[in-house]
Amino acid sequence: MPSIDFKLIKQDSGCSARLGSLTTPHGRIDTPIFMPVGTQATVKAMTPEELREVGSQIILGNTYHLYIRPGHELVRRMGGLHAFMHWDGPILTDSGGFQVFSLGEMRKIKEDGVTFQSHLDGSYHFISPEISIAIQEALGADIIMCFDECPPYPAEHDYLRRSMEMTTRWARRCKEAKKRDDQALFGIVQGGMDLELRRQSASELREIGFDGYALGGLSVGEEKERMYEVMEFAAPFLPDDQPRYVMGIGAPEDLIEGIYHGFDMFDCVMPTRNARNGMLFTSTSRINIKGAAYAEDSGPIDPECGCYVCRNYSRAYLRHLFRAGEILASRLNTYHNLYYYLSLMAQARVAIAEDRFPEFRREFYGKRNVA
Amino acid sequence: MPSIDFKLIKQDSGCSARLGSLTTPHGRIDTPIFMPVGTQATVKAMTPEELREVGSQIILGNTYHLYIRPGHELVRRMGGLHAFMHWDGPILTDSGGFQVFSLGEMRKIKEDGVTFQSHLDGSYHFISPEISIAIQEALGADIIMCFDECPPYPAEHDYLRRSMEMTTRWARRCKEAKKRDDQALFGIVQGGMDLELRRQSASELREIGFDGYALGGLSVGEEKERMYEVMEFAAPFLPDDQPRYVMGIGAPEDLIEGIYHGFDMFDCVMPTRNARNGMLFTSTSRINIKGAAYAEDSGPIDPECGCYVCRNYSRAYLRHLFRAGEILASRLNTYHNLYYYLSLMAQARVAIAEDRFPEFRREFYGKRNVA
Repeated sequence: MPSIDFKLIKQDSGCSARLGSLTTPHGRIDTPIFMPVGTQATVKAMTPEELREVGSQIILGNTYHLYIRPGHELVRRMGGLHAFMHWDGPILTDSGGFQVFSLGEMRKIKEDGVTFQSHLDGSYHFISPEISIAIQEALGADIIMCFDECPPYPAEHDYLRRSMEMTTRWARRCKEAKKRDDQALFGIVQGGMDLELRRQSASELREIGFDGYALGGLSVGEEKERMYEVMEFAAPFLPDDQPRYVMGIGAPEDLIEGIYHGFDMFDCVMPTRNARNGMLFTSTSRINIKGAAYAEDSGPIDPECGCYVCRNYSRAYLRHLFRAGEILASRLNTYHNLYYYLSLMAQARVAIAEDRFPEFRREFYGKRNVA
Repeated sequence: MPSIDFKLIKQDSGCSARLGSLTTPHGRIDTPIFMPVGTQATVKAMTPEELREVGSQIILGNTYHLYIRPGHELVRRMGGLHAFMHWDGPILTDSGGFQVFSLGEMRKIKEDGVTFQSHLDGSYHFISPEISIAIQEALGADIIMCFDECPPYPAEHDYLRRSMEMTTRWARRCKEAKKRDDQALFGIVQGGMDLELRRQSASELREIGFDGYALGGLSVGEEKERMYEVMEFAAPFLPDDQPRYVMGIGAPEDLIEGIYHGFDMFDCVMPTRNARNGMLFTSTSRINIKGAAYAEDSGPIDPECGCYVCRNYSRAYLRHLFRAGEILASRLNTYHNLYYYLSLMAQARVAIAEDRFPEFRREFYGKRNVA
């Protein structure tokens, strides 16, 4: 029996947007969905109960960080990541690939795997496709990811091709290394901004066969047009009847474009990280709550928002909390931003169900242009 | 009509512990009670809803900090401290005296008032009894405090006497300056560890007449025995039919002693500040969650505790969060510590109601000695 079950409920008649339902060992997810990032076994500043309140259905954990601290074997002994962090819903773990490659000078890539130094203490470590899978099996997420190389941008075509081919070989090794049958394994399509390489990557991964497919290597410095081009081009090469995930994306408009082109799952630190920096999303724009303009603004962050924060706190108070360096600032800002992201996903699902996603997309941009 | 109404429900037959009920413009408080400290218009890391969950009935705001940032006039224009911070229960503000005197070299005390430099930007400010009352009226707490001098410890008898006499003159000026009739004003008994000065201070303040009386100038470096001696000595000089408050106290055992000697209200940053440093209170001891001993401890902070944190998180997870510098560490630790303090107060009230506070006090110490 497969560990997950994806049902494609409908596709919008005016675009590639899909409405789906993904059943995992820890519950069902409505797609399209955004996954808040819980790097160190916590979505920063939030309790699991609050994650539910804002509409989270699945969260992401970072394999690299959990491997480094507190260690995947400790997490396994504590009952796995779900029990450890008191989140009983679905979890997806990345493979550690992106995080390790982000270390730059501190890592060395070979066919066998990657040697790298810990960002905490400089100690040396080695992660191969097999080790990544073993770590993710110890963590116990519902969905785990193949260990891949995320190439830099820009990169030479030859480098991109060799990197993509190694990622494919690594994907095969990941599938072979996988032991647990209660976890789904997703392949990661690479190839940079080269469309032909993306097509080849998707095709080869499908031949190996995975429970779902992701686009990796986006949002690495390229212009948005290129990112959207890759999403639009690659989607048709992925199976209709399996979940499609764009990794590390993105701004609200990036999610809208990803959905428009037929993707189902997204994750990004933007709503949580920006919140801690005082940047808040509204239905018409983004605001920085630090601004002097908000010093005596008794209105909510977003008059159109119905979240706990917008119902109970003024911009003036949130500005005060932020300037005073109060923990409650990070809490309330994060709560609002995640509510914004997850409400946007809920609205997108309704729009697809009602066969009007292209209109929804136009309205989304329209509100912003007016503001 | 007086702004507050204190009802002495009963006194324990075996000691001076009192069970009371204090009605304020923003609701009723059961006494004895502990007041969490919300220095900058937030009890650090907690929402108002969580403060209620852990049993908070009244919170404290710091006049000095709110005067400096965001400014009392801004708070007034935003509807007062209750509306600004979304806490609709009772609030007590200190007078700024203790905070200003804590500035050390950065302040200069004269009969008229105190000149000091802001801890934020070094700018010069002046607070007099009249200005302290004006600030507290702008903030709009239910209970406000007289501006007093908190003498250092140890201090010469002559300094203590002159300081106490000035505090009495300042108290009279505070009462005369007060305009709002929906706020209660408490006098602050000073006199250091000199019992005769304490008696004289209490007597002179009673002559002026206040809505309640506090002991100031404790927990300034003296041995616990001296603190307890002052509490025991001073209580009988305070009116039976008005609330009695020990300011800036303390550790759990200090609260037990304060209650034993007949005090009704307490405040201290200890549960919240220590929480952020990883120090957690349990029914038998204190633990530092940083400890390696907790790395794989799957048990709760305190097996006897029924709080949200103890019901859902292991010591191992809390240790991980703390070491990783996660905001959730401060949140969960603060939640637990405040729950501990407020549960201790609730248990104390039941013990007094059942006429067994001395026994409750013995059990409190007994548990700690066994552990």
